[in-house]
Amino acid sequence: MFENSERSNIETLGEFGLIDHLTKNINLTQKSTLKGVGDDAAVLDFPGKKVLVSTDMLLEGIHFDLAYTPLKHLGYKAIQVNLSDIYAMNGTATQVIVSLGVSSKFPLEAVEELYAGIYLACEKYGIDLVGGDTTSSKQGLVISVTAIGYADEKDIVYRNTAEEGDLLCVSGDLGGAYTGLQLLEREKMIYIENPNIQPDLEGKDYIIERQLKPEARKDIVELLKDIKVKPTSMIDVSDGLASEILHICNQSKKGCNLYEDKIPLDPMTFETAREFNLDPTICALSGGEDYELLFTVKQADYDKIKLQMDITIIGHITERSAGCNLVTKAGVVHPLKAQGWNAFPPAP
Amino acid sequence: MFENSERSNIETLGEFGLIDHLTKNINLTQKSTLKGVGDDAAVLDFPGKKVLVSTDMLLEGIHFDLAYTPLKHLGYKAIQVNLSDIYAMNGTATQVIVSLGVSSKFPLEAVEELYAGIYLACEKYGIDLVGGDTTSSKQGLVISVTAIGYADEKDIVYRNTAEEGDLLCVSGDLGGAYTGLQLLEREKMIYIENPNIQPDLEGKDYIIERQLKPEARKDIVELLKDIKVKPTSMIDVSDGLASEILHICNQSKKGCNLYEDKIPLDPMTFETAREFNLDPTICALSGGEDYELLFTVKQADYDKIKLQMDITIIGHITERSAGCNLVTKAGVVHPLKAQGWNAFPPAP
Repeated sequence: MFENSERSNIETLGEFGLIDHLTKNINLTQKSTLKGVGDDAAVLDFPGKKVLVSTDMLLEGIHFDLAYTPLKHLGYKAIQVNLSDIYAMNGTATQVIVSLGVSSKFPLEAVEELYAGIYLACEKYGIDLVGGDTTSSKQGLVISVTAIGYADEKDIVYRNTAEEGDLLCVSGDLGGAYTGLQLLEREKMIYIENPNIQPDLEGKDYIIERQLKPEARKDIVELLKDIKVKPTSMIDVSDGLASEILHICNQSKKGCNLYEDKIPLDPMTFETAREFNLDPTICALSGGEDYELLFTVKQADYDKIKLQMDITIIGHITERSAGCNLVTKAGVVHPLKAQGWNAFPPAP
Repeated sequence: MFENSERSNIETLGEFGLIDHLTKNINLTQKSTLKGVGDDAAVLDFPGKKVLVSTDMLLEGIHFDLAYTPLKHLGYKAIQVNLSDIYAMNGTATQVIVSLGVSSKFPLEAVEELYAGIYLACEKYGIDLVGGDTTSSKQGLVISVTAIGYADEKDIVYRNTAEEGDLLCVSGDLGGAYTGLQLLEREKMIYIENPNIQPDLEGKDYIIERQLKPEARKDIVELLKDIKVKPTSMIDVSDGLASEILHICNQSKKGCNLYEDKIPLDPMTFETAREFNLDPTICALSGGEDYELLFTVKQADYDKIKLQMDITIIGHITERSAGCNLVTKAGVVHPLKAQGWNAFPPAP
């Protein structure tokens, strides 16, 4: 990926030199940031607000494959994945802290690419990078991000507060990130077998981007505020729709009916799933990594929600004893099962 | 380390099952914790305070060697290392978030041991574990911790505020963690060559514990408050005394004189360094991982500081042009150099 002649050495910079190099041009824009990078801890100020903190770790070989993941995209995604958790609380994300474990044989330009993606995400979402840790790794690339944000107490939306009769809603469309991943994996295999064959990803930009460069739905949080709808519960879709619905229902001690024909799928997701002999519904239910927002609203908010192009009503909350059900296109009722992405897959 | 018969499988628990298993008995004690584990983000409340956030990542093969590091100690240390950064701001540490990357072949009992150490540290220091991320790792154990705390704005102590004439002080003693590491590494080598020889660590408890089970100096922060001394600058000693002094001096745009004969060394550190043909002073200056607090105080506070058994005055701050100097026992003046622990050592 990198010409030898272009390689600079991070060993000669050392840890502090590398941190200085990567953070010297930081532009702090949040008034809640009193002190960013450069001391033992960041100092933040959220007068009158509650503080939201979340973290997610990305490991090479588990969460990403550098064979088809550009480092700039990876940096961007590492930030989005974490911001998504703050938005899922109906909060405003303001800062991130980034820890990086990287082989000392990694060229400086590679670390710069990764940070270019991190800074791009921060700039686009109005986030300050305020700290972190950088160390060598003997075991591939490790990225750990902590996202910080705030909210008024009355605005915070939890997972365990859905009520019977509430409408189950989701932003955007689902299953794209997973079908994009299938495509990238296939092209990688073809390339391994014959390096002369160029990847065939033409016309698949949307789902490739869903996988490599997801966008956290800050816009949906803002939209809901604009139309004066406060969700009764909310979670982000990182592990697949089924898993997230079950989190809301189990934690709220409720059941639900999810209607298969309402699940929003992009035509490209549908078509690509079919190419791979996959059921597009399963891709949405179990695929994960879409980083959309799943939430419930009161029935009284139906008129406001139905007008929103980017929000789909996919079901409703029932009493617990009714269970969590998927109502298929054929009208058959199945218990909803979480077969989402497993962080601990059985050893091959 | 673990009998096969005792092994339970973390694959069968899955990610959410594992998180539930490890966090079901959490006892939240901080009133600043409104919501801990179980939603997209933790919700915290620090009315009228500034929020402090810091992070540190520990990677197997870089920061620890499981050949001689008990997992319970490792969990304990991972928390201490992070709390130390909050105390170094003169703050009160209140919460941690722990991300863990662990091989799916790791027995559940091993993860439980690690968490036992994490919880022990939390309990002892009054800290709530409020979130995290748990995932499989293909590349050894990865522990990333974020520590959160608070302080009144007027109490926060930065690195860049030392003034000419201030006294340079350090808590406890230095070099112990490094000499303890030398000992553990030697016994590992002997064991590899002949597994029948038992490790000879008798009488070396203190320095072994300095390496494997450090304690963040919450007590020093409380002591300084009690005797009404606010340091003019502060940092924790993670990378060796020389490196930390240079951080304070460079960021404060000052120089310093550090007196070799004042550097506090435990007799066991001194004796063990000699056994290894190491200069005990170099162990203190460059060894790292002592997690003591290095700070400066006004000369007017001399009378209060000199009475403290666990604080040593090791030098003073000078004007920048005088440089940062080590005055040896023989009275020779050397420029102080950071040869501390290097996160990016040259490849072997």
